[in-house]
Amino acid sequence: MPQDDQTTAFDAATAVRRAEGGGLVADLDPGWDVGGGILNGGYLLSVVARAAVLESPHPHPVAVSASYLRAPAAGPVALTVVPGPAGRTLAHSLVTLSDTGGPALTVQATTATLGSTPSEYSHPMPDVPSVEECFSVAEHRDLAPPGVQVPGLSLRVDTRLDIATAGWAFGRPSGEPVLRAWMRFADGREPDPLALLTFADALPPTSFAMGNPGWAPTVQLQVLVRALPAPGWCLVEARSSEISGGWVDEDYRIWDSTGRLVAQSRQLARAPR
Amino acid sequence: MPQDDQTTAFDAATAVRRAEGGGLVADLDPGWDVGGGILNGGYLLSVVARAAVLESPHPHPVAVSASYLRAPAAGPVALTVVPGPAGRTLAHSLVTLSDTGGPALTVQATTATLGSTPSEYSHPMPDVPSVEECFSVAEHRDLAPPGVQVPGLSLRVDTRLDIATAGWAFGRPSGEPVLRAWMRFADGREPDPLALLTFADALPPTSFAMGNPGWAPTVQLQVLVRALPAPGWCLVEARSSEISGGWVDEDYRIWDSTGRLVAQSRQLARAPR
Repeated sequence: MPQDDQTTAFDAATAVRRAEGGGLVADLDPGWDVGGGILNGGYLLSVVARAAVLESPHPHPVAVSASYLRAPAAGPVALTVVPGPAGRTLAHSLVTLSDTGGPALTVQATTATLGSTPSEYSHPMPDVPSVEECFSVAEHRDLAPPGVQVPGLSLRVDTRLDIATAGWAFGRPSGEPVLRAWMRFADGREPDPLALLTFADALPPTSFAMGNPGWAPTVQLQVLVRALPAPGWCLVEARSSEISGGWVDEDYRIWDSTGRLVAQSRQLARAPR
Repeated sequence: MPQDDQTTAFDAATAVRRAEGGGLVADLDPGWDVGGGILNGGYLLSVVARAAVLESPHPHPVAVSASYLRAPAAGPVALTVVPGPAGRTLAHSLVTLSDTGGPALTVQATTATLGSTPSEYSHPMPDVPSVEECFSVAEHRDLAPPGVQVPGLSLRVDTRLDIATAGWAFGRPSGEPVLRAWMRFADGREPDPLALLTFADALPPTSFAMGNPGWAPTVQLQVLVRALPAPGWCLVEARSSEISGGWVDEDYRIWDSTGRLVAQSRQLARAPR
């Protein structure tokens, strides 16, 4: 199975290269959208993290906090990395992703070297149906709520929703802002820390489960990568704790195929009306 | 009761003023330490957020993400605010806190105007004993584990631990990385969004509950402020989801005295050995 080169959709779409003059550049792929030409925030974070690790002595993003200033257009972007303190354990940097309209994302990145140490404590994976018993978003594009376009993202990230959290797809929103799904890349590319950054924002908005379909633009997103994920499907759970005044949080936990917690994220987003 | 002026300990310790030349400066108060002269990370975030709102059209910090580059010394610091996009709903900025040794904290701040809209959904407050039935950290300084100095912070932030999560103070750690406490300023200063930033990092490390007392230095911390807190005690809960390889997360939820969820935070820290 192809890994870590540009023969997989994810590696090609997040590739970062050094331009003449030494600056880092990338080409944002329009296929990683969440509808309406808006690129997924997690996808953008994976591109930024590639730039961060290129300029770091450490290979893995372990904490990444992003402010989404505005939605960048697909196409060429520049990635400016300002290195901060770096040591044996971790390194800090500040990365800005800019398109022709100016800065779109500013990101504080902490990189480190994740090993293979076992967990001393790990929040257990919830009990969910098998992948085969779950609801394939890509195979049910025609079931999207009226006005909601199924995103390109869902063709590239195979997303199998736990039926218990997928009632909204059948016109019966649960009223509880929780979504759970098995997730992996559609072309079989195995998960790694960079992939987890995309998975950490790849579920539909939790507001779908509240009967409010619509875009929930991310304002700030923090992702923590806690371990190197094992090959196979990841279980991704998103949960909101407070919805009010036009604001919603989304809190993710991600477990790998062995049941280990490998990533967490939290974002503040504007709630769809 | 004194509010929003420098007659309260919190307002005096977090005051930010404009120096000659126009830059923002503050004097970090050595009394807000977590032991060993190390200042509390939430306290530092409150100082930074004061600088952010001074330079913003909006009065409230709603999302604040900080990278802790190194522990700043008490005493004079400079606060550099680089404004980002600002609109009717929210404004972004990047704030750097520097002491004589250079940058210590870089913070992405999103400010907005929180109103009095009721919750559409709110994660319920857990069932806990009353303040009077809880364990006062300040009144039991002598019970601190050997080698652990009770921090100045705990004299300024009145912290009443739910006994169910305070076994470690009696040599009986629960083995579950969860702490819960009622919290308010010792001088009766009422909570507000700036105060919630301090509360969002003011519990002892969850590793205490695992039988590992010791300092857990914060690497990155994100705090979301979700509503204006009502007067009175706040309930603060911290929980870790994964401890491994020398890393630990701490995930906070904070409810106000009416039971409304008013803040959330998540940090990645180095785990005490």
